[in-house]
Amino acid sequence: MTEFDLIRSIASRFSVPDGITGIGDDCAVIPAASPALSDTLVTTDLLAEGVHFLRESIPPSDIGYKSAAVNISDIAAMGGIPRWAFLSIALPPDLTASSPWLSGFMDGFTACCKRFGVTLLGGDTSASTGGVFVNVTLMGSCPHGTALLRSSARPGDLVCVTGTLGDSAAGLRILTDRTGDDATCTDQKVQLKDGATLMKRHCRPEPRVTEGQALREHQGVYAMMDVSDGIAADLPHILEASGVGATVDVQSLPLSPELRSLCASRGWDPADLALCGGEDYELLFTIAPGTEPPVPFTVIGTIDAAPGLRWLGGKSSYTGFRHF
Amino acid sequence: MTEFDLIRSIASRFSVPDGITGIGDDCAVIPAASPALSDTLVTTDLLAEGVHFLRESIPPSDIGYKSAAVNISDIAAMGGIPRWAFLSIALPPDLTASSPWLSGFMDGFTACCKRFGVTLLGGDTSASTGGVFVNVTLMGSCPHGTALLRSSARPGDLVCVTGTLGDSAAGLRILTDRTGDDATCTDQKVQLKDGATLMKRHCRPEPRVTEGQALREHQGVYAMMDVSDGIAADLPHILEASGVGATVDVQSLPLSPELRSLCASRGWDPADLALCGGEDYELLFTIAPGTEPPVPFTVIGTIDAAPGLRWLGGKSSYTGFRHF
Repeated sequence: MTEFDLIRSIASRFSVPDGITGIGDDCAVIPAASPALSDTLVTTDLLAEGVHFLRESIPPSDIGYKSAAVNISDIAAMGGIPRWAFLSIALPPDLTASSPWLSGFMDGFTACCKRFGVTLLGGDTSASTGGVFVNVTLMGSCPHGTALLRSSARPGDLVCVTGTLGDSAAGLRILTDRTGDDATCTDQKVQLKDGATLMKRHCRPEPRVTEGQALREHQGVYAMMDVSDGIAADLPHILEASGVGATVDVQSLPLSPELRSLCASRGWDPADLALCGGEDYELLFTIAPGTEPPVPFTVIGTIDAAPGLRWLGGKSSYTGFRHF
Repeated sequence: MTEFDLIRSIASRFSVPDGITGIGDDCAVIPAASPALSDTLVTTDLLAEGVHFLRESIPPSDIGYKSAAVNISDIAAMGGIPRWAFLSIALPPDLTASSPWLSGFMDGFTACCKRFGVTLLGGDTSASTGGVFVNVTLMGSCPHGTALLRSSARPGDLVCVTGTLGDSAAGLRILTDRTGDDATCTDQKVQLKDGATLMKRHCRPEPRVTEGQALREHQGVYAMMDVSDGIAADLPHILEASGVGATVDVQSLPLSPELRSLCASRGWDPADLALCGGEDYELLFTIAPGTEPPVPFTVIGTIDAAPGLRWLGGKSSYTGFRHF
């Protein structure tokens, strides 16, 4: 059973009232009581030590920043305004409430929240018999009926993405290849110039909040989500939710100069990193041809009526990050 | 540093806008856009294996039920109506998405949600390198400005509690004393009649949703919270938030016949269990003298102008559950 089979089986236990978007999009959407008011967006993300992060290779402030950022990115993926956070954290026996690790974590968490206008309103703390566990629930808002869902892609739409892809995956690979020596996300410790940029993309992802809102306000922008598991894993969610297929041109993927340079020197395939690595937290969206969204973006493919995902100019298939 | 010092230090990093209740009550209260609409209540609770539950001594369906119930109880503690749930769960290597444990957990979680009108709208799943971790965020509502806060107790108020106290703590003691033989919360495996009732109070706590709403609607009911860590730990939260003290009559504590009988046979002090054990999920509230709330309740003390918590008719002090 994959993570998505599990989620489907959990979702099937509940019947969601009409007009509410439940499990299956970046956020739940709870409609406002009147059209003049804002809908409420809610998302939640669990980060587990040893699964989502290695405590020894990422500074606590980066883990804190990222814990907020990945949730803010889910709000951005609907075109929403992030508002309220709820933070649960479980600490293993080697960390106490007075540990520098925890205050470092809170420094990063607070910095990311403040940067994006988010206020912490609640949470829970606990001991852990395993590693560190962090769960963040984030609430946001957007004008009634305007959230950009995954289910709105139409055949003929162009598949677009903000920013560049694969940087975070390359940064993670540098970090994990070098664990034990001095590689961390903290720039001053990093020798490799390109590596520093890529590691920062991994450790301090930038949720595309402004871009998401601009896209939501622009006519001709349809389905949207954020890139958390890699295009190869994420785009199929849009295709399935919308009942369509897509063709992606691997040669058109937006790659940073740092990623190209590192891949050239190490013999890595940048398309693998861009499509399979995940954690870019860029926005993946579809637009009607001729639409000119007001943010920098790259067209990487087209939506087809025929189901399935086809790759041009690369390998015959790619696989995104799997959670189990 | 205690859990509450930690929470205070985290809360101090954020400034909460006027009119919003943030960290420090059972739920956050986000006010409605207009007085005719409902305020939004939000709470979140983390349950960790080995800290909040022992997987071998509690059936998965009870853990699932309780995960929902403890959050619903926080909504009840404001007088709210529980509405929407978000569930994060991390599974250790010995459990998979197809494990009977997980479907048992979901059976209990779903049963509790449905019983109290809660719909699951989202969540997250992950692997865990430790034990099982469960985080539930629950949203609810109540008419604008009516949520019963911890900060509203006034000198001269009577301190009241619904139901009986100490049953859950006694049930837990039976379970942990007997781990390894056939004691579980599943009734048919339990030999001891009184024990079955008490263990059920521990494993399937009943959030006082109806009672909470009735108390919220009744004139003369002031501060309210739920009893999760024991009166000795919980009542001080009301006292601190309200800037008052209290005197509790230990002889007046509501004790079930099952608890009295078990304590008599085992030589346990029922007041210790009732005041220090926690997890009763009853409602602790204050009323003006002469008020007749429309739910069964027991007066256990009075609110004083002088700070501090005084005990009559028992030991000189009691200590509630500590999280660290």
